[in-house]
Amino acid sequence: MKILHIDSSITGPRSVSRELTKLVVKQLVGSGQHDVTYRDIVAEDLPHFTAVTAPSAHPISKAVPVLDDAQQAKRDNSDAILAEFLAADTVVIGVPMYNFTLPSELKAWIDRIIIPGTTFKPGPNGPEGLAGGKRVILAIARGGYYGEESAFKAAEHAESLLSTALRFIGITEIETVVAEGLNNPDKREAAVDEARAAVQQLAA
Amino acid sequence: MKILHIDSSITGPRSVSRELTKLVVKQLVGSGQHDVTYRDIVAEDLPHFTAVTAPSAHPISKAVPVLDDAQQAKRDNSDAILAEFLAADTVVIGVPMYNFTLPSELKAWIDRIIIPGTTFKPGPNGPEGLAGGKRVILAIARGGYYGEESAFKAAEHAESLLSTALRFIGITEIETVVAEGLNNPDKREAAVDEARAAVQQLAA
Repeated sequence: MKILHIDSSITGPRSVSRELTKLVVKQLVGSGQHDVTYRDIVAEDLPHFTAVTAPSAHPISKAVPVLDDAQQAKRDNSDAILAEFLAADTVVIGVPMYNFTLPSELKAWIDRIIIPGTTFKPGPNGPEGLAGGKRVILAIARGGYYGEESAFKAAEHAESLLSTALRFIGITEIETVVAEGLNNPDKREAAVDEARAAVQQLAA
Repeated sequence: MKILHIDSSITGPRSVSRELTKLVVKQLVGSGQHDVTYRDIVAEDLPHFTAVTAPSAHPISKAVPVLDDAQQAKRDNSDAILAEFLAADTVVIGVPMYNFTLPSELKAWIDRIIIPGTTFKPGPNGPEGLAGGKRVILAIARGGYYGEESAFKAAEHAESLLSTALRFIGITEIETVVAEGLNNPDKREAAVDEARAAVQQLAA
């Protein structure tokens, strides 16, 4: 099984989402044989999506066909991001909620996997996803409470956006592990403990 | 009156949101005396938000108190972004919807204006916005249909996110001009025309 492990938190060793993705991958790997690709999109400072940085498979890349070496390295990296996503059986994504949505790095990553003709195509009843058959596990960390039971659920634009984007390209098997209320020092550790326990319940 | 004009489209001269923000600013300026600050966050390749690039007013910046020259320039730029936002009476933002939400550059801009102690503070009934009294005009461009009347409104994470983030910091006066369905070549020009007409209806 090929596992793709993505981290996007900017808080380094203090990051709850980073701890959780690590635990999720450990849970998945168990004692089996697995091929894990790790990508830290904060450490690599993933560039914003533009005609230059777009994967070659994206039509917008044709707008800038000639690149200098630095630009080519960025496009090659985007090609690698798309290829490793397409190759993965399971994708584990660390999702810290910053200002109601994803870190901008994670939005930039999403821009590299939503590719007309590659991960979706037009169909008679609207766009059809082409990247189905993968399992995605989101390890979500957020300061407040934005779950199903919360009055503030409508303000949540991280999990909701990822779910929309992934379903658009055909991915229906999306699981989440959530640590929330982390801004409350009295409840933080219990919230993380609960998420750690939830990881243990994931099917390997 | 101080106007802040932000563009975030990656499509340059073909951009509908760029055309619309320009028209909005023209409409606002009219024949009066105005001080317009322009910021193109794609041209400047606004860095992702991190402890290094955060404005000095953000507590996370204290995690990296000593910066080299290149890092200091990034923090200084973030300080300028926050200052020009705080100084503005009216903020005009170009909002192209890419993959259901904002360009990552615009998310990175939002990260520079949501600052604890500066644009919001804790209150007895939850956080209180401190940046009220501004008028914000969003010039929105999107390929599909995601308006109030659309079955796909729940997939819209650009206007909805900006509204959430801006209201969080106390801004209640938010107006929108929308050009949508732009992916349909047969309807594109009419959609843009409709948005151009809507700009003429904005109060100066």
